[in-house]
Amino acid sequence: MKKKYTIGLDYGTNSVRCVIVDIYNGIEIATAVWNYESGDKGIILDQKDHNLARQNPADYIKGFMISITEVLKIASQSIPEFSSSNIIGMGVDTTGSTPMPVDESGVPLSMLTKFSTNPNAMAWLWKDHTAYAEAAEITELAKKEKPEYLDKCGGVYSSEWFFSKILHCRRRDPEVFQAAFSWVECCDFIPALLTGNQKPEKIRRSRCAAGHKAMFNDDWGGLPSEEFLAKLDPEMAALRSRLYDGTCQADEIAGHLTDDWAKKLGLTTGLPVAIGAFDAHLGAIGSGIKPGTLVKIIGTSTCDIVISDKPVEKVPGICGIVKGSVLPDVIGLEAGQSAVGDIFNWFVEKIQPGGAKAGSHEELTRKAAELKPGESGLLALDWNNGNRTVLVDQRLTGLLIGQTLHTRPEEIYRALIESTAFGALVIINRFEENGIAINEVVNCGGISEKNELIMQIYADITNREMKISHSAQTCALGSAVAAAVAAGTENGGYEDFAAAQSNMCCTRKKVFKPIAEHHAIYSKLFRLYMQLHDGFGLAGKVDLYNVMKDLLAVKEEVKR
Amino acid sequence: MKKKYTIGLDYGTNSVRCVIVDIYNGIEIATAVWNYESGDKGIILDQKDHNLARQNPADYIKGFMISITEVLKIASQSIPEFSSSNIIGMGVDTTGSTPMPVDESGVPLSMLTKFSTNPNAMAWLWKDHTAYAEAAEITELAKKEKPEYLDKCGGVYSSEWFFSKILHCRRRDPEVFQAAFSWVECCDFIPALLTGNQKPEKIRRSRCAAGHKAMFNDDWGGLPSEEFLAKLDPEMAALRSRLYDGTCQADEIAGHLTDDWAKKLGLTTGLPVAIGAFDAHLGAIGSGIKPGTLVKIIGTSTCDIVISDKPVEKVPGICGIVKGSVLPDVIGLEAGQSAVGDIFNWFVEKIQPGGAKAGSHEELTRKAAELKPGESGLLALDWNNGNRTVLVDQRLTGLLIGQTLHTRPEEIYRALIESTAFGALVIINRFEENGIAINEVVNCGGISEKNELIMQIYADITNREMKISHSAQTCALGSAVAAAVAAGTENGGYEDFAAAQSNMCCTRKKVFKPIAEHHAIYSKLFRLYMQLHDGFGLAGKVDLYNVMKDLLAVKEEVKR
Repeated sequence: MKKKYTIGLDYGTNSVRCVIVDIYNGIEIATAVWNYESGDKGIILDQKDHNLARQNPADYIKGFMISITEVLKIASQSIPEFSSSNIIGMGVDTTGSTPMPVDESGVPLSMLTKFSTNPNAMAWLWKDHTAYAEAAEITELAKKEKPEYLDKCGGVYSSEWFFSKILHCRRRDPEVFQAAFSWVECCDFIPALLTGNQKPEKIRRSRCAAGHKAMFNDDWGGLPSEEFLAKLDPEMAALRSRLYDGTCQADEIAGHLTDDWAKKLGLTTGLPVAIGAFDAHLGAIGSGIKPGTLVKIIGTSTCDIVISDKPVEKVPGICGIVKGSVLPDVIGLEAGQSAVGDIFNWFVEKIQPGGAKAGSHEELTRKAAELKPGESGLLALDWNNGNRTVLVDQRLTGLLIGQTLHTRPEEIYRALIESTAFGALVIINRFEENGIAINEVVNCGGISEKNELIMQIYADITNREMKISHSAQTCALGSAVAAAVAAGTENGGYEDFAAAQSNMCCTRKKVFKPIAEHHAIYSKLFRLYMQLHDGFGLAGKVDLYNVMKDLLAVKEEVKR
Repeated sequence: MKKKYTIGLDYGTNSVRCVIVDIYNGIEIATAVWNYESGDKGIILDQKDHNLARQNPADYIKGFMISITEVLKIASQSIPEFSSSNIIGMGVDTTGSTPMPVDESGVPLSMLTKFSTNPNAMAWLWKDHTAYAEAAEITELAKKEKPEYLDKCGGVYSSEWFFSKILHCRRRDPEVFQAAFSWVECCDFIPALLTGNQKPEKIRRSRCAAGHKAMFNDDWGGLPSEEFLAKLDPEMAALRSRLYDGTCQADEIAGHLTDDWAKKLGLTTGLPVAIGAFDAHLGAIGSGIKPGTLVKIIGTSTCDIVISDKPVEKVPGICGIVKGSVLPDVIGLEAGQSAVGDIFNWFVEKIQPGGAKAGSHEELTRKAAELKPGESGLLALDWNNGNRTVLVDQRLTGLLIGQTLHTRPEEIYRALIESTAFGALVIINRFEENGIAINEVVNCGGISEKNELIMQIYADITNREMKISHSAQTCALGSAVAAAVAAGTENGGYEDFAAAQSNMCCTRKKVFKPIAEHHAIYSKLFRLYMQLHDGFGLAGKVDLYNVMKDLLAVKEEVKR
């Protein structure tokens, strides 16, 4: 019997990765990565506005053309019996919320000559925060008019999300707003393009993006009501009918590869293309998520994904609760930490402890590993980039306490690691307090694979085993898993995700187990962490809540 | 008319400095410094106990022999008309509380063969903290039995002080304690030795050391009562009669130079030697202190000295209130910050920001000077070495808040500078709230001379002009001033301190004036500083007080 393969396309922040996966064992037989060529490492920035982060949609298109061609070449070279005719499906994941304005034909406005250099006509990258005022406005309105909208997104609508960005465009650049027939998430755009469904009314939208970022819910008839949007702006209400009213779960397809693209890419015409989804959600699938599993995708920030086969009404501070957003028909929950690897990178690259030699991640990790929990007397809050879960407050900042004249860089480094682990435990506790049991934690992403000290500290602090996903590219693998399900048994694929995951996903043999005496000390430190967390993070709890905010207010006053 | 000179001997932590000063203008015509040769830079340490810091009294004796000989040689070489016969007096200042056990002849026990290598028989340097438990015990007992003792020393008796150290010796090394006929402060020991008054009953004790460190006060009959001391330990009560029952103010003399020493040193027999005092107190005199002047001696830590010609009963948190401890018959008040230069050194040397090149004090100062007040969004507590005034709590630790992923080393460096300025303002406010007006601030010590940014920030934050003492060695100059008063008009010296200071002390022309817009921003930051200060520093204020303490408790638990 011939082997069957699927393609997973993973659009990251700086590059697109394409893998070909053997669907019988989940092994990636070939990988190609292409770095976006626009802007700074693929990101269009604005020196005058640090909140701005956009991407050029042309990079997305060039990205799959180059990486698919390349990955096919690599596979053919390394595996003689490989044939692209044995590829039975394709899946796509992307960052999000990364919406872009498109015209009536579904062409991104930035690809029209008129708007080719206008960042507002490009894709608004997930980390774009220009719409912070509009996010606050939407949150306020929803609190007053439609609190149920907020229940499903942690109580606060974010500046990173779909409607904040569109509303900001409406206010800031009415010309682009007027020219936009519709707005499309990147994860919906790519599959639509590949399958010839590019016209807005034909695009099949993913439940994942719609539910987590656009307040879409069948309970209230899909997207936020016209009435609600009209209160933000009449033009927003008018836009609603040009967006979408239905969404697809992960076991559905976006369509079939067009003859044109099949020829250009060297693939089979009519290849099923799975519905797109966000990287973290397909990463969770690639990590073998099931009810009771927490998948932690640890990179510069983290995304924490849990699914529940029981109803979940509300989990305060959790960014999203969306039925069918990860696996079909079960509730997907998304949480996350705004900075993890980024905090360690900040300390090493910006503060440069001990100079280049002694101040590397490797050297600091080595020295930090020699310390016992608690012996430095340090404690940190992991809020250098705000707090996404459970406080949902981007205007929180970092804190380090306990310094003496003897404090060493590796002690601070370890305290920063511990702070992110305490932040992770806050999220786990919040799930469990709301009836969602966490029976297993699977980690993936570079940090979990490379840094054993961090994983051990996470085990010690959470008092749970830390498992590591076997694949080093779980998002791309998750897309390939979705593709194998999209292909279906009739094409040699799988009947459902359970079958596909059991063959294609596994965790490493090495499991990090909590050490009882470490946990005993960390329990004490966690109580102190919570005191700082609540003291500085919750208004009204103790009268230090204003300190971080007021510092930012002073900072802004000075900048003016 | 021939010029007149005095000698100032200044015993620091690592070296002794000897100056010859022209008493008509206060100019130091010659300076010699000798580094102590015992231990680590003059300090006997114990690898097993970081609290231990002792000094070898032999270094003190060798110190004046070498440095006086050297300074006379230098003066003769550089000024042809100089003659040692024109030296009309000598003054001595030392660190303190730095007591040493002596035998019936006044010989330090460590100079006896039997105890020559025993650190407990040496001088217990000011920064020795081995007696922290005894300090707490004395504080507790005084709170219960004699609260008035504590009113004059800020409410807490310190582990750095006279009776804590003696009681610790009693407990830890009874043999040394038994062999000690008496205990003598270093600042009393040197003048006594030079004047042949070495026998304990002949030593003239300084009001400064007695009042600030040994709870001496004429109001309650001198030293703490026998009854009080007996409750600590019967042997302590027995010791009392072998200590002292009278003290001398700065305008008195310790005695006259013996014939023997005069010959050895090349000085005049019978030269008046001023009563000794602590370095900070004579530094304040050398800086021209008068009622209403705050003298800040800024080094690794600070000592803040104020005098008041009105009665002062109690200033909470101020380490000492002693009549006649600085200038005769007026009240001397001593406050201080546990770390200032040490915090900047910690950041540069231990954390090494930016590596050796970009991370120097000079480079960080240059970059920090480009920042506007408030623009970093950072705020720090200056407690890396505890807080001496006004919280009197060595178990407080450092704090930095407001970090983002963009925070740079120079921003932290500036925040650390600002934190020490806020700490300085807390002290000024505490004086003023208790009726002691501060009309002038004179700074001295290396930092005030070398770092203009720091002085400007101090001016901006305190909203007061910062003056800098003209002399770079104000403590030694103060000793020389005291010597000129000790000599008296009959020997060509001065009638009193006012006359001596007006001739010998001055401040630089350059004065740092507060910049109004900086102060406006810093006022906002100071309110936030006070929130953190009270939140983490005062029990019962808000419920974060325990965080720093509990972290230390965990640290100690882990170490055990």
